Amino acid sequence: YAPTRCAAVQTSVEQGVLPPCHHHEAVHDPQLVPCTCPLFSCPWEGHLEVVVSHLRQTHRINILQGAEIVFLATDMHLPAPTDWIIMHSCLGHQFLLVLRKQEKYEGHPQFFATMMLIGTPTQADNFTYRLELNRNQRRLKWEATPRSVLECVDSVISDGDCLVLNTSLAQLFSDNGSLAIGIAITTSKVHNAEAEM
Amino acid sequence: YAPTRCAAVQTSVEQGVLPPCHHHEAVHDPQLVPCTCPLFSCPWEGHLEVVVSHLRQTHRINILQGAEIVFLATDMHLPAPTDWIIMHSCLGHQFLLVLRKQEKYEGHPQFFATMMLIGTPTQADNFTYRLELNRNQRRLKWEATPRSVLECVDSVISDGDCLVLNTSLAQLFSDNGSLAIGIAITTSKVHNAEAEM
Repeated sequence: YAPTRCAAVQTSVEQGVLPPCHHHEAVHDPQLVPCTCPLFSCPWEGHLEVVVSHLRQTHRINILQGAEIVFLATDMHLPAPTDWIIMHSCLGHQFLLVLRKQEKYEGHPQFFATMMLIGTPTQADNFTYRLELNRNQRRLKWEATPRSVLECVDSVISDGDCLVLNTSLAQLFSDNGSLAIGIAITTSKVHNAEAEM
Repeated sequence: YAPTRCAAVQTSVEQGVLPPCHHHEAVHDPQLVPCTCPLFSCPWEGHLEVVVSHLRQTHRINILQGAEIVFLATDMHLPAPTDWIIMHSCLGHQFLLVLRKQEKYEGHPQFFATMMLIGTPTQADNFTYRLELNRNQRRLKWEATPRSVLECVDSVISDGDCLVLNTSLAQLFSDNGSLAIGIAITTSKVHNAEAEM
């Protein structure tokens, strides 16, 4: 698999440049969503169906296909805050992987990884995502239900409800400054589907 | 499974009370090892074969048996530094699980969990341990080779080469202040055994 990241963030962005979470306040038409790319203060908004083409065309975010993919995040040494973003097309839906390096505690950058469905929260509940790191006879797996892009990626990360890596663990799993993240999406178990009925 | 922890640490201990890592310097007879209980500045030393009975009798550390066990660490809210310790008897060996709450960064306690074989580093290389947290449709798994108790648990934790949990993640996986940690030990794959020959 080819290494892919949002090409426009080879230099880190100031935290203040990240768009505020205005998903619920500023959307006039409830079917319109703002740009879900957390990298830029992008004025775009549109229907969920065209978010993917906006992300591809305007922000040049790549799509990887397949039930199980490997995303190679390069240049892990870049200073915080930095985001690595990829879209994952799978099971008839598109997902957004966000890997963020951020200093929640000053001087101690951490890595946060989560997956968002480009769809509604109800649709997101039908899936489980798995992120896996595997290197040097060590393995770390995180499994959870993806959030919807209608929710705010910033709050998912500030809540810490995602894969969290200290710098030391990130280095243990990195190879030559790059972190290979295995990603798999599955449909949730039957009892989850039943719980929704 | 009954909740178990080193009964003598219901109150947190001062970091300074933890024993220094004198495994390599202070052992006169190379077959003698110091007390491996990280909780106390314990003057005991003895052969590896009697470490287990020392830990049971002097420090009242319990042993859980079986290939897969669940250790319930209670009172996760206790202030750092605090240790939770259990022995795990499996595959003809005894392992020591150390769960430590520690403020690596002042004001931001984290949890660190690792497994040590009560045996030599060469013996430890034959095993893989897995720690698993599973709650609220979230799952976190850590797999690695156990360290030997002849190495220093303090340096394993300060290197961050273990399962690391922020307070927020620990709370997501806790139930009523208790953290259930699934523990499994397996023998390493064939290619590891071959690599040693």
